[in-house]
Amino acid sequence: MKAVIHYGVSGINGISIQNVKKDKPKPGNVQVRIKAAGLNHRDLFLMKERKEDLDKPVIPGSDGAGIVEAVGDGVQHIQVGDEVIINPTLNWMHASNVPENLEILGIPTDGTFAESAIIPAENVEKKPSFLSWEEAGVLPLAALTAFRALFTRGQVRKGEHVLIPGIGGGVATYALTMAKAIGAKVTVTSRSEEKLKHALEMGADNAIYSNSDWNKSLKGELVDLIIDSIGPAVFPKFLSVLRPGGRIVQFGRTTGDQVEISLSLFFRNQFSFLATSMGSKEEFKDMLHFIEEHRIRPVIDQVYPLDKAVQAFKRMEEGNQFGNICLKI
Amino acid sequence: MKAVIHYGVSGINGISIQNVKKDKPKPGNVQVRIKAAGLNHRDLFLMKERKEDLDKPVIPGSDGAGIVEAVGDGVQHIQVGDEVIINPTLNWMHASNVPENLEILGIPTDGTFAESAIIPAENVEKKPSFLSWEEAGVLPLAALTAFRALFTRGQVRKGEHVLIPGIGGGVATYALTMAKAIGAKVTVTSRSEEKLKHALEMGADNAIYSNSDWNKSLKGELVDLIIDSIGPAVFPKFLSVLRPGGRIVQFGRTTGDQVEISLSLFFRNQFSFLATSMGSKEEFKDMLHFIEEHRIRPVIDQVYPLDKAVQAFKRMEEGNQFGNICLKI
Repeated sequence: MKAVIHYGVSGINGISIQNVKKDKPKPGNVQVRIKAAGLNHRDLFLMKERKEDLDKPVIPGSDGAGIVEAVGDGVQHIQVGDEVIINPTLNWMHASNVPENLEILGIPTDGTFAESAIIPAENVEKKPSFLSWEEAGVLPLAALTAFRALFTRGQVRKGEHVLIPGIGGGVATYALTMAKAIGAKVTVTSRSEEKLKHALEMGADNAIYSNSDWNKSLKGELVDLIIDSIGPAVFPKFLSVLRPGGRIVQFGRTTGDQVEISLSLFFRNQFSFLATSMGSKEEFKDMLHFIEEHRIRPVIDQVYPLDKAVQAFKRMEEGNQFGNICLKI
Repeated sequence: MKAVIHYGVSGINGISIQNVKKDKPKPGNVQVRIKAAGLNHRDLFLMKERKEDLDKPVIPGSDGAGIVEAVGDGVQHIQVGDEVIINPTLNWMHASNVPENLEILGIPTDGTFAESAIIPAENVEKKPSFLSWEEAGVLPLAALTAFRALFTRGQVRKGEHVLIPGIGGGVATYALTMAKAIGAKVTVTSRSEEKLKHALEMGADNAIYSNSDWNKSLKGELVDLIIDSIGPAVFPKFLSVLRPGGRIVQFGRTTGDQVEISLSLFFRNQFSFLATSMGSKEEFKDMLHFIEEHRIRPVIDQVYPLDKAVQAFKRMEEGNQFGNICLKI
């Protein structure tokens, strides 16, 4: 089968398209003929981290959807021919039982950027029929992360004001759409006028420049919940726009690792700082119900054939996409 | 009436016992003949912060219990002669609606260290009959703070492992007793052998030195919830003993104001950092039901007459008390 292989050089230049041997699914696993797969910053990040001499060839890719073509022993409720969507979070069943070592499909084990992938049976769910293959293929990781961030962790409620700094990435875009679906008010920030415009078209109530004075831009209105992936560069701004009792849910850190918290400021306002990553099987199923109920579709930025995986990753590296980049296989 | 007055000099030396004019309760307020009142670190802290020349004479004191001796216009459900316990948190009704400016009875407005105090009617509740006057007088602030920290914010469940650094203070002691009442496992830390022994007698499962290697002392067992008031001096230790998905609830900061958070460490473990302070009327009532159901009594360290308020505060300043210091009036 044809697969994207990462090997030899760290980063995008380590990518090649190769023919590799197709395995058979072990007990408890299923083999999925991948129809479409989605790129994530995680793939890019981990390819950069890989050591040229030490790491074995690997098939990247956490997101995907396709048709079951073989099932391993002991697998129930899933049959050859089922159309499925893949949950990339391994070994995590319930929302509150966070696993000690969160494992995600893809690097360091083989993932979805191939004509066929072997996946634990508990990690596939029925593909929502209203989604195209491309839409289902790019949905999982970002939509799951946004769902857990917004609902399980952020406990967002109708009528609340949600601030989403750095709109444009997959998770942030789902967070915008999902928050609007339940009747929250959403303000987004970006450095790009293009992205702010796009977010307004998608239903954002308010779009402000990341480097503006947020209090002024919000006309002094305080927000209830911040869903952030930027981190240190904007963190200090959060504390002046968050209402007492407000929550910060952090799912990324594109501008660094360390933030300082003033305990007295946190007490006085009884803030909550909630870190989140991916989600459980329980939340993945809830997320699929939610997007089906609210007819939420991913925003597809561009679709590339498997052979053009390098170009697809270059697009992601440039950072100009709005929504998800898809590999059609 | 006789009252503790703070004026002229910052700190304990500004305290004198004086005869002051007794006011009448305004509409919506009640006048309570105070039978007993409890000291809090808050009183000490605010007396130190007061400016000699600028601040007016004030009656300190947030905690108290007594008998209603007059009611203002418009007050329902409360009558002269009712035995009441005072909720020191002003203008906060529901747990999730954290007020913009949390106001607490006592400095800067007149509080409970007097023969009589005027209190908003919504801030008095029926005194639990199983408590003595001294017990009811010292209970409110610390028990309310512990209740909100442990249940509303920390969401503690039966069977979970709770770590309480710096046992000995009022809130920490209630947190220990309340956590044990619902069947949680509790480990406490202290620098004092005496306090560790005392905590074990009160039902702590495990008592370790604050400056020990916590991982070793806990034999590698991870905890679910940390209820802390120490802050920077122990904060870095939290991150190595907290299980993935664990919560830190912070209600104080005796060792400084700034803590550093590594976002990658927080994500990887999906920690929650939850600041808390006092509690709402709703939580005050729930707390009273809880202590009545579980027959939780405050630990009284020592009782002083009103005239000996300075000695009482000296005892608190020395930091050797275990449990609450009471003024009997």
